[in-house]
Amino acid sequence: MKLVIVGGVAGGASAAARARRLSEDSQIVLFERGPDVSFANCGLPYHIGGAIADRAKLLVVSVEQLRTRLRLDVRNRSSVERIDRAAKTVHVREVDTGREYDEAYDKLILAPGAAPLQPPISGIDLPGVLTLRNLQDMDRIKAAVDSGVKQAVIVGAGFIGLELVENFVERGVQTTVVELQDQVLPPLDKEMTATIVEALISRGVTLILQDSAESFTQSTDGLMVRLKSGRELPAGLVVLGVGVRPENQLAVEAGLEVGPRGGIRVNEHLRTSDPEIFAVGDVIETRDAVSGAPVQVPLAGPANRQGRIAADNVFGHPSKFRGTQGTAIVGLFNRAAALTGATEKALRARNQAYRTVTIHPANHAGYYPGAEGMTLKVLFSPDDGRILGAQAVGGAGVDKRIDVLAVAIQAGLTVFDLEEVELAYAPQFGSAKDPVNMAGFVASGLLRGDHPQIDVPALATLGESERTLVDVRTPKEFAAGHIPGATNIPVDELRERLGEVPRDREVIAYCQVGMRGYLATRVLKQAGYHVRNLSGGYKSYRMLNP
Amino acid sequence: MKLVIVGGVAGGASAAARARRLSEDSQIVLFERGPDVSFANCGLPYHIGGAIADRAKLLVVSVEQLRTRLRLDVRNRSSVERIDRAAKTVHVREVDTGREYDEAYDKLILAPGAAPLQPPISGIDLPGVLTLRNLQDMDRIKAAVDSGVKQAVIVGAGFIGLELVENFVERGVQTTVVELQDQVLPPLDKEMTATIVEALISRGVTLILQDSAESFTQSTDGLMVRLKSGRELPAGLVVLGVGVRPENQLAVEAGLEVGPRGGIRVNEHLRTSDPEIFAVGDVIETRDAVSGAPVQVPLAGPANRQGRIAADNVFGHPSKFRGTQGTAIVGLFNRAAALTGATEKALRARNQAYRTVTIHPANHAGYYPGAEGMTLKVLFSPDDGRILGAQAVGGAGVDKRIDVLAVAIQAGLTVFDLEEVELAYAPQFGSAKDPVNMAGFVASGLLRGDHPQIDVPALATLGESERTLVDVRTPKEFAAGHIPGATNIPVDELRERLGEVPRDREVIAYCQVGMRGYLATRVLKQAGYHVRNLSGGYKSYRMLNP
Repeated sequence: MKLVIVGGVAGGASAAARARRLSEDSQIVLFERGPDVSFANCGLPYHIGGAIADRAKLLVVSVEQLRTRLRLDVRNRSSVERIDRAAKTVHVREVDTGREYDEAYDKLILAPGAAPLQPPISGIDLPGVLTLRNLQDMDRIKAAVDSGVKQAVIVGAGFIGLELVENFVERGVQTTVVELQDQVLPPLDKEMTATIVEALISRGVTLILQDSAESFTQSTDGLMVRLKSGRELPAGLVVLGVGVRPENQLAVEAGLEVGPRGGIRVNEHLRTSDPEIFAVGDVIETRDAVSGAPVQVPLAGPANRQGRIAADNVFGHPSKFRGTQGTAIVGLFNRAAALTGATEKALRARNQAYRTVTIHPANHAGYYPGAEGMTLKVLFSPDDGRILGAQAVGGAGVDKRIDVLAVAIQAGLTVFDLEEVELAYAPQFGSAKDPVNMAGFVASGLLRGDHPQIDVPALATLGESERTLVDVRTPKEFAAGHIPGATNIPVDELRERLGEVPRDREVIAYCQVGMRGYLATRVLKQAGYHVRNLSGGYKSYRMLNP
Repeated sequence: MKLVIVGGVAGGASAAARARRLSEDSQIVLFERGPDVSFANCGLPYHIGGAIADRAKLLVVSVEQLRTRLRLDVRNRSSVERIDRAAKTVHVREVDTGREYDEAYDKLILAPGAAPLQPPISGIDLPGVLTLRNLQDMDRIKAAVDSGVKQAVIVGAGFIGLELVENFVERGVQTTVVELQDQVLPPLDKEMTATIVEALISRGVTLILQDSAESFTQSTDGLMVRLKSGRELPAGLVVLGVGVRPENQLAVEAGLEVGPRGGIRVNEHLRTSDPEIFAVGDVIETRDAVSGAPVQVPLAGPANRQGRIAADNVFGHPSKFRGTQGTAIVGLFNRAAALTGATEKALRARNQAYRTVTIHPANHAGYYPGAEGMTLKVLFSPDDGRILGAQAVGGAGVDKRIDVLAVAIQAGLTVFDLEEVELAYAPQFGSAKDPVNMAGFVASGLLRGDHPQIDVPALATLGESERTLVDVRTPKEFAAGHIPGATNIPVDELRERLGEVPRDREVIAYCQVGMRGYLATRVLKQAGYHVRNLSGGYKSYRMLNP
């Protein structure tokens, strides 16, 4: 067997290593256009910021190690230019020498990755306008920062964009982020990003939403970024992080099927439309594990697993890729935002029925010092309670809850199962009723009907004459800020003061995070009111109405 | 409906709160023998150590709050002395006044908890020999430490014992732990405790295993603890943490069924053998969620959920308790040890077939600073790969992996599913191949037969003439310590040096943690050898052969 692999980073390197373990006597040729294989893509921003001081740490495995330990025929600085499917060869050009040759394969695995999008903006080719994909890109950005750049503009407030923001701020660079959408971190639901916006602003970052770069110009003073709005931003450095596109030219030119967004089409064995060719990583179109819809999800975890699976199939082990949930996380100024499965906007876009709960728990027992708050949102099916997605944002423990929920989604668990999840509890680590249990309690109560709720967007659709808003917090909390039109009746006085609550319309009860509102809802419901609790309370209201 | 609840801490307080939310018009009477309700049991050691400086923080909810907010008829300092099941009354004695009276019930929930075991040791009643169950016990221990005790002996190296050790050390008390078994943290498999033993010793704790207290005597110099071995330990303070027994007198005297270890028998609705009486928390016998076997698991999380479920059933909602996995964690000197589901010793005791994998990953990407090591052990069925249990010990991230595996066990997932788990990855939080994925890869490879393994105890049962031990690490690693009788052939040279490996007997390959050993095993297997990789490598060997 002669296996040829195109691309030597996450998916390609994983495929090559797995292939060698499966077969000592195969010939395995790994082509990589760049100088480095198997580098730590996700670490690049942190070398710029200085957290990863030693650049060599980003080279997880060297070309030499792959050659010695795994007997791989690694050919870096070698660009695969085309595939001849009939002849079963690839045409290769050595980047340094220009030498060209054909290399035969029995099986081919394509792992060329994705390239940063380069929108057609005037001046995009100026030397100070950069993107971040590999170590060389990183070196250029770091060199600019090292040379004393004072101001930077980052176009795109996605995961990589915000990681760069953090690292620029760490380096003392005055940073502006420009995002086309009306929120940072577009994969998340908007209200979940409020905490992140707060963090950005508190660290002096300028955030410009619903705007985009129209041109870049260079003067002796540096770059000038002109936005669609007309605003002008001087900058010593511009980094574009507006998304990626699959590096699909090879596949397209070879006539392999690609999806509408350019991802190479593969089956569950990661085989392309040509049975001798597999494809893995950021270049493919895969399936959303929750909905089954085709998606392109450029993430390192799935790429690595896909590499293993493609190699398995090359050697006759029929492993399957189950699709991806898009589990992802970003750290930012000691906060984190993470998601897994479907978001509210994704469910709305595909017209799928869902319910949602949002809670604002602490990561561990409040009586133990250092508890940090988080907001946890869980989306689930109104029919059977099956968990469809989750998002969390906050301090410590965000990753843990999203990981727990990622497994719950993978296993097809329901919100009723979350009530019974048994997590490790000691006061430094969690709570006797963990945030995951709490989300399960609230969601199950909603589905069982004993905890009717309304969420903040739905509240806004009710006319003032349709509902009575009762703020059940203390007078002090009420005085510090409340929803316009609310009446303050603290939960501890509610039973005596029922006479003050009109019976001719629906009552919406709310507190700070939803706990006291829940009790108030129970009190009012049993007293015969038509009542709902505001999901996530005043805290959720503020996230949507900053 | 008149509901009477006996016991006002975790299970009882949860039951009462849930009951009120379900029913505004019920009469709910909550009896508690002590002065406090709903206090933070799990926080007690940390007030002694000073981490929780404010004692009031341990009072999660006050008696007054329960009365005002939940309209509970809370009667603290009131001891329920007996139950008259025919009359449906409990007989109550007020602790302060001595007044006695009967209180009628429609339904009764028993939540009296468990009491520390008091073995029949001479001198156990001396004033300096204490146990830790409630705030008053805590106050006594803290007062002793505050008064300048220099030396303490803790009898029992279980979870609470070790939490006390940590807090005593924080306070500068020279501490000795005495444990009857041959390991600390008896719920865990022994080899998993090596890291914890190391931590104890590095902090100056004296650890005495396989010994027990035979007598306590008081002299003018303080206490003297005499051990079975004859050893004598002077101490200013002794704390017994040798386990708990269910507070079952009420139930036993009322003729309710109890199990062989004293736990009140309940069905899945937490109903006792009397249909009008429920029981929850540390006092009950429940089911092991994995094996179905009856167990007594005194943990706060299950107690809280049981309280909710019992209240549900009182009010006609047929909620069920699915049993417990015994998920638990202990923090100690910035390390943690945690478990969920079955341990190896539990599986062996019930003669259940299992396989095991042990890996030694880092909590997050090695290229990002601050990665901390952990040891993760997963037990699974040899038939279908179903996960039976997991243990982890190490630094940061231990809680997360055990929580992820706890959900996997609850959902009935297999090790093949673990290969595909999609956790949140950014370099501060995890790895593209998370420890949970790695455990899945190793275990699945074992079951598929492409990664034959042997564990350290099984290696010890092979005669020297039966196997060739090949250490595939570098000469430098080999020189720093290796398994006696091993030959050093670095993995990178193995293919050339196959001639040095005899073919007439089995080969056991090993490296530091199992990764290079895996590759070596693949190389040798494909070269026709009968070969196995030592699970967890030299690191696991050292844990079992310190």
